[in-house]
Amino acid sequence: MSKIAPISGFPEYSPAQRIVEQRFLDVIRETFELHGFASIETRSIEPVERLASQGEDADKEIYGVQRLADGASDAKWGLHFDLTVPFARYVLENAGTLEFPFRRYQIQKSWRGERPQEGRYREFTQADIDVVDVGALAPHFEAEMPLVIADVFAKFPIGEFVIRVNNRKLANGFYAGLGIKDLQGTLRAVDKLDKIGAEAVRALLLERGLTAEQADGCLRLAQISSVDTSFVEQVRTLGVSNPMLDEGLESLAQVVEFAAANAPGKVVADLKIARGLDYYTGTVYEVQLVGREDWGTVSAGGRYDALASDGRTTYPGVGISIGVTRILGLLFGAGELSASRSTPAAVLVAVNDEAGRANSTAIATALRARGIPCEVAPKADKFGKQIRYADRRGIPYVWFPRDDGDQVKDIRSGDQVAADPATWSPPPADLRPAVLAAGVGGVD
Amino acid sequence: MSKIAPISGFPEYSPAQRIVEQRFLDVIRETFELHGFASIETRSIEPVERLASQGEDADKEIYGVQRLADGASDAKWGLHFDLTVPFARYVLENAGTLEFPFRRYQIQKSWRGERPQEGRYREFTQADIDVVDVGALAPHFEAEMPLVIADVFAKFPIGEFVIRVNNRKLANGFYAGLGIKDLQGTLRAVDKLDKIGAEAVRALLLERGLTAEQADGCLRLAQISSVDTSFVEQVRTLGVSNPMLDEGLESLAQVVEFAAANAPGKVVADLKIARGLDYYTGTVYEVQLVGREDWGTVSAGGRYDALASDGRTTYPGVGISIGVTRILGLLFGAGELSASRSTPAAVLVAVNDEAGRANSTAIATALRARGIPCEVAPKADKFGKQIRYADRRGIPYVWFPRDDGDQVKDIRSGDQVAADPATWSPPPADLRPAVLAAGVGGVD
Repeated sequence: MSKIAPISGFPEYSPAQRIVEQRFLDVIRETFELHGFASIETRSIEPVERLASQGEDADKEIYGVQRLADGASDAKWGLHFDLTVPFARYVLENAGTLEFPFRRYQIQKSWRGERPQEGRYREFTQADIDVVDVGALAPHFEAEMPLVIADVFAKFPIGEFVIRVNNRKLANGFYAGLGIKDLQGTLRAVDKLDKIGAEAVRALLLERGLTAEQADGCLRLAQISSVDTSFVEQVRTLGVSNPMLDEGLESLAQVVEFAAANAPGKVVADLKIARGLDYYTGTVYEVQLVGREDWGTVSAGGRYDALASDGRTTYPGVGISIGVTRILGLLFGAGELSASRSTPAAVLVAVNDEAGRANSTAIATALRARGIPCEVAPKADKFGKQIRYADRRGIPYVWFPRDDGDQVKDIRSGDQVAADPATWSPPPADLRPAVLAAGVGGVD
Repeated sequence: MSKIAPISGFPEYSPAQRIVEQRFLDVIRETFELHGFASIETRSIEPVERLASQGEDADKEIYGVQRLADGASDAKWGLHFDLTVPFARYVLENAGTLEFPFRRYQIQKSWRGERPQEGRYREFTQADIDVVDVGALAPHFEAEMPLVIADVFAKFPIGEFVIRVNNRKLANGFYAGLGIKDLQGTLRAVDKLDKIGAEAVRALLLERGLTAEQADGCLRLAQISSVDTSFVEQVRTLGVSNPMLDEGLESLAQVVEFAAANAPGKVVADLKIARGLDYYTGTVYEVQLVGREDWGTVSAGGRYDALASDGRTTYPGVGISIGVTRILGLLFGAGELSASRSTPAAVLVAVNDEAGRANSTAIATALRARGIPCEVAPKADKFGKQIRYADRRGIPYVWFPRDDGDQVKDIRSGDQVAADPATWSPPPADLRPAVLAAGVGGVD
């Protein structure tokens, strides 16, 4: 029998950590639904051919899947490595029955065969929203995305965050206006700015054949950022003109204005943001936690003019993905999040003796009927031992069935009061486990 | 590029079907939590060696997983085919930090490389509860399981159900009392009763070397069932005596009595129930839908004295699994379930013109802040067209921003009233999509 051991990159949580994860997922789902996104789930596998055709190095990261009974041979299927590729396929497969523009969210696991490290996993959960339309996609959807994401992150107990936005057309138009031909290569080099610094990026650009003047222009553009639309004026002073640049400036200004009105202070125009993926064609987004910029991007996305295409019809889309496992992995790693108890149970109903188990169960049934999670003590031990059973799990209340009228004890304060299972309720804050956020002092 | 097509056995739902699935999963989770079960999730993969050591034909059904970059070779890992094998491993891996008895639920996908058919899939969601303890597990947990499952199924909009229970010791003790040696083989033959009938089972038993008298005894035992403890007397009249039989009768009587008190009419002692898996050692459970017995078992489980073992310590457990994808597949296939709309949005906020989009968005933000899911119209079309947009998705309300005071229209009745986004709410029944159960007339 194989050894019992963790598998690197495939995280598993304790029951208390799982309670934290569930709270994050509940916030995400609830908020996505408030914004009118419908849930779908796609199968875990796609044809390898479809997966491998997306992204440059994708085939190296794919996990192949095949029946053991089929022996060692090339896998026909692979586990999806994101939720965008399967969603694009789902749209094409169901285009005849979906209503467009189609607003969907998708919260599922994905798998990548990469080298695991803190905040980067081989099995991980992502939460995506996308709006996809037929032929053309209205620009206001690009302005809408940050509002949804800001609404989600504001409900997380993790402090301040910032949504950085840029526009592909702005950078590409600016580069073209400078006479640069290799737009993709330039974008990729500039994207490394935070990691390697301005001098190294400048060297990279010169290496790629840019003139010193072009390289300096790219760096000056990348250094521009503003919480309002003043970035437009800053770009104009660089003296580059190009129609695609104008388009990008106008579009980004709209996104920033819309955000200032609806999610003030959360969205920043930051012209160094590139997002590596080639298929973005308009607004791009990156979310960082303030004071935790070293953790990198915890949520990202953008607009793609061809999210999906069957050769005749093109489906443009815009979306953002939240790296749930990444965020939790980083926060758990920093010891910043925990739950007040390791079970949903708010009450332990004590058992006087095994003959009284039926009565204790009836009490539990009455409490559950009113939405109070509870558990009946597993053994008719001395009450002190039953209280310790609750205490070890963080269950705040112990219920004592008594012939002269039941009583319930708050084992944290020691307060014990008469109680009727048909009417007693714990305070709302005790009904569900609390998520405790040490680092930011917040409690949800 | 590979063809866009479904993969047999890997079901995907429409947004409306997904709403139905989510409602089922919500009911399951909420009920499991009310009963004090804590959620865990395990990684999707286990070492192939561990998977293949469980069950007889397991290795034929396993999907192997390996990085494509590693080339065609024997897979080291496989996708789990149930949630019990990974749970047993999780218990061993975390035995030092878990609190026992450990009550956990787990709602996840599993994968089997079997031939797909209606109600049987290659990728499917199961919802499991188990209680596991160290060394010994109190028998009252065997009586508790059916209460939890009855509580879940009573909340499903799918009509009547029955939980059939039996006890392995009862059948084994009875067979031993008849002088039968091949207990497993006999159990397996009797388990086919519903499928092939009494005559064929009798022939099978004779083939396996039982005498006519032994075979007839087995069949008479299998025909006994009762909603109360009268099955004990019926077994006694067959005149077989054996200490393990006595133990089984006592244990099953306890389960039935406990159920009669706490979930009256839902649990039936049915002595033909065997459950194929060898590792059950006590109570076994099978759930069927009344009037849909031809659909077979939709939920099942039992007690195992050795859920997990590391050689020194043994962890006995008892649990039940709900076949969520199986139930939904059968109900969707029969056209019995649908949702009142294909989106969470209860309200479409109309847009007068693009300049008014900011105002419509502010209205949506106000509604969302009070928990009302809504969507802003994608285009400033004529109102008739915006109403049809809502209608096609089943969104019941359209909100009209007006200079002389906003109005909201129930597009089903045509009623239109003045409304303030700070105070108006839809009736509670319209807040979330309704799940419509055609076959049983129920509406949730």
